Amino acid sequence: MRVDLNSDLGESWGAYELGADADMLSIVSSANVACGFHAGDPNVMRDTVIRARDGGVGIGAHPGYLDLWGFGRRKIAGDSLADLEKQTAYQIGALMGLAALEGVKVTHVKTHGALGNLVAEDDGVAGAVAKAVKSVDPELILVVMPGMATERAAEAAGLPMAREIFADRAYQDNGNLVPRSEPGAVIHDAEAAAASVLAMLEEGAVITKSGKRIKGRIDTICVHGDNPAGVQMARALRASLEAAGIEIAPFHHFL
Amino acid sequence: MRVDLNSDLGESWGAYELGADADMLSIVSSANVACGFHAGDPNVMRDTVIRARDGGVGIGAHPGYLDLWGFGRRKIAGDSLADLEKQTAYQIGALMGLAALEGVKVTHVKTHGALGNLVAEDDGVAGAVAKAVKSVDPELILVVMPGMATERAAEAAGLPMAREIFADRAYQDNGNLVPRSEPGAVIHDAEAAAASVLAMLEEGAVITKSGKRIKGRIDTICVHGDNPAGVQMARALRASLEAAGIEIAPFHHFL
Amino acid sequence: MRVDLNSDLGESWGAYELGADADMLSIVSSANVACGFHAGDPNVMRDTVIRARDGGVGIGAHPGYLDLWGFGRRKIAGDSLADLEKQTAYQIGALMGLAALEGVKVTHVKTHGALGNLVAEDDGVAGAVAKAVKSVDPELILVVMPGMATERAAEAAGLPMAREIFADRAYQDNGNLVPRSEPGAVIHDAEAAAASVLAMLEEGAVITKSGKRIKGRIDTICVHGDNPAGVQMARALRASLEAAGIEIAPFHHFL
Amino acid sequence: MRVDLNSDLGESWGAYELGADADMLSIVSSANVACGFHAGDPNVMRDTVIRARDGGVGIGAHPGYLDLWGFGRRKIAGDSLADLEKQTAYQIGALMGLAALEGVKVTHVKTHGALGNLVAEDDGVAGAVAKAVKSVDPELILVVMPGMATERAAEAAGLPMAREIFADRAYQDNGNLVPRSEPGAVIHDAEAAAASVLAMLEEGAVITKSGKRIKGRIDTICVHGDNPAGVQMARALRASLEAAGIEIAPFHHFL
Repeated sequence: MRVDLNSDLGESWGAYELGADADMLSIVSSANVACGFHAGDPNVMRDTVIRARDGGVGIGAHPGYLDLWGFGRRKIAGDSLADLEKQTAYQIGALMGLAALEGVKVTHVKTHGALGNLVAEDDGVAGAVAKAVKSVDPELILVVMPGMATERAAEAAGLPMAREIFADRAYQDNGNLVPRSEPGAVIHDAEAAAASVLAMLEEGAVITKSGKRIKGRIDTICVHGDNPAGVQMARALRASLEAAGIEIAPFHHFL
Repeated sequence: MRVDLNSDLGESWGAYELGADADMLSIVSSANVACGFHAGDPNVMRDTVIRARDGGVGIGAHPGYLDLWGFGRRKIAGDSLADLEKQTAYQIGALMGLAALEGVKVTHVKTHGALGNLVAEDDGVAGAVAKAVKSVDPELILVVMPGMATERAAEAAGLPMAREIFADRAYQDNGNLVPRSEPGAVIHDAEAAAASVLAMLEEGAVITKSGKRIKGRIDTICVHGDNPAGVQMARALRASLEAAGIEIAPFHHFL
Repeated sequence: MRVDLNSDLGESWGAYELGADADMLSIVSSANVACGFHAGDPNVMRDTVIRARDGGVGIGAHPGYLDLWGFGRRKIAGDSLADLEKQTAYQIGALMGLAALEGVKVTHVKTHGALGNLVAEDDGVAGAVAKAVKSVDPELILVVMPGMATERAAEAAGLPMAREIFADRAYQDNGNLVPRSEPGAVIHDAEAAAASVLAMLEEGAVITKSGKRIKGRIDTICVHGDNPAGVQMARALRASLEAAGIEIAPFHHFL
Repeated sequence: MRVDLNSDLGESWGAYELGADADMLSIVSSANVACGFHAGDPNVMRDTVIRARDGGVGIGAHPGYLDLWGFGRRKIAGDSLADLEKQTAYQIGALMGLAALEGVKVTHVKTHGALGNLVAEDDGVAGAVAKAVKSVDPELILVVMPGMATERAAEAAGLPMAREIFADRAYQDNGNLVPRSEPGAVIHDAEAAAASVLAMLEEGAVITKSGKRIKGRIDTICVHGDNPAGVQMARALRASLEAAGIEIAPFHHFL
């Protein structure tokens, strides 16, 4: 049994450093690289590409809103579907440019922050993103949430997809995350997170808070490196998975 | 006999419009598209790609400094050669992402503003830009100034190159432009500009202010669309060239 | 009888020019000067301060969201009331710094775009803006919409206020504008706009689409200079007002 | 005997944190607060104002180039003296706006990074900055380098000034710092730095590398909080000064 661990990386910018990238690159098998709109600049993008390549870690574009100040986390209304399609294509292309400098390929795309939330919930936006991804390179793997709009859009576009779960989050019955404002939304304990992930992998299903199963392959698990607790949880999760005989590998190796 | 006419286009940004793009796309055969660092955003980039494609105009990336406020015209010290290489790769890739949305190819690269000046004069920077271009796509044509660092860098890298002259500028004996601060640096009269261009094309040489000839093929002529006089001069130049039996075509058709 | 005409001005940025500022400064009596977040930079801010001073036009800060790309027109969620208070204070202070270079005073504040819409409707945000204005200078006049949250906030804060109507817009019964998406929301005819404004001034009331009157002093009329039709309407309105014996003067002269 | 310790603070921006501000605010007596151009945003500016006020630390504006990506450290050519004057006035005003929210006064100005280097060396730029400072508030204290252009400009403008030395740098005979590229330019040892500072305070002179004395009052010592070694050196320096019977106080208390 194989699964991928993915994390957002390359989120520094200019003089500003953010995230425990060196640590995380020794834990995860796929890196979602910020592309300059909400975080990331050509310098850190290239550094991340080099480190990921050298560590055998898959390289993905992580497009977000053009909102550096808000780190792509603020909901911004007013952009059309066509606008979001263009912003996505721009960012993927930019990372491809930097990856080309090192002779490596960008193999996946995962949307960031407020754009990521919107993409999971809005079929129109998910379709725009899928269209951008397919236009740029139809072999790019789109990271999707089982049962949500991203999955439908990838299917409709005929894009390869990696079905993702979050190690530290509880799920609603529709497949979406329980909002952070609700009790029990976030799993803070590393052991509890590992147990939750192992249960889902063993069943081959997203297990929701109410106990519902959303059946289907699970390809990748999202972990966080932007705070010390996240790094610790990611490391513990990897150890638990390996102890359970599960191999950690970039999803583009087995999809 | 064939020659290309190129112009900087797609320099609007957000709510801000700049340049007579519609006019210029009916005059030139190659468009240098701003890529978001000194001008241009995904919206105008895509619009420019569509209009250029529909008009049979070649599409090139026009990378500049990350200096939107200064429109890429301010000299910025402090970036290493590796930094400039990365900034170039990022911007070319970003335009490729948008071109992919429309199923077209980016066929050339021309640097902008203060970066363009530096690239002409500094072999190190020219080499960094040529390396970025070649890594991203070795078939990209680099626009170069005969006798200057860009030409040497393209030759050394084995990149296809388009040798460029400026319709409205006088030349120094080393192949560089006479600085704007000097008398006679800029040709303001459309007829004089056309005469200068025709003379260079007929001789197959850049003719400097002192009368020196820098021999070699001339592939493309730079014209300007950011002011009404520039548009008028470009239109007049095209008419003069056609009247002299010279065909205007994108350089990627004949290089 | 006296009334003020106000317009958004100083919306250029870097190499980008926007708006018919020279024309508008000969028509209006108060200028709302963009402060660098959604438009405007120190150069155009100072130019606008000088021109307004020389033309006897009142100078106001026009704070908006930190969203240059969206020109402050996109709704951005996620900033707290305290954040908006700080953004407002920053922008007013910045304009005061530039006004100080010319020895003039900033006399009013009017919020821009999506922030302006929010401020009219949300008592919390209106209170945050009023608090910022009062902290920076309690003599600043806040431009408010009769019957809306801005008016309540200025009253509660004890700030001087200028009650504003829009020359080219229809009103709902609560005092808010009819949304642009609805028929009849925008008055495109200059004569119709002048008639509407004159009727409101004569009655001393905002007259809504349904015929309701929201009684109270009207101090200023908003006109637009970002398109030729707006400039023409503003000029015609000024002529109509003067023909009706109404004096146009900056509201800080009579409030 | 009294002296001030100053440090650059409030250099975070958006999601990005930079600098040991909490530590430094317990060590220094004056804070140079970044104003949004090279670092700092309204949120961190206000936080810094509050913390400084609560700790009895003087609050100064720290204007720099509009170059967030380069952290204001890159030399940018092409802005006129008038441009730099406006950029300075904008940034001071912006901080004043935020300080007004907390009922405190901005009491000094110190330029940042590449602008700071230029101001020390170029009488024209120093004059432009001094003019901006004086226009905004003639009671603002300008931080100057003894013997350099800033000092001459403050004198000519009749501005109060704080004469500054750097704890960790060696001096040339003209009063400028020995460039970092030269051996011995930077003092890395905290004890050596304290000894150097104490010697200069006792003699009432800047002591250059060659042993020359530039006589005159020393009002403030610059220390750094952007790396752990800097914080440690600052803390050790404060202890050494206090052990020598020197009182640490904001310079606006004794100038």
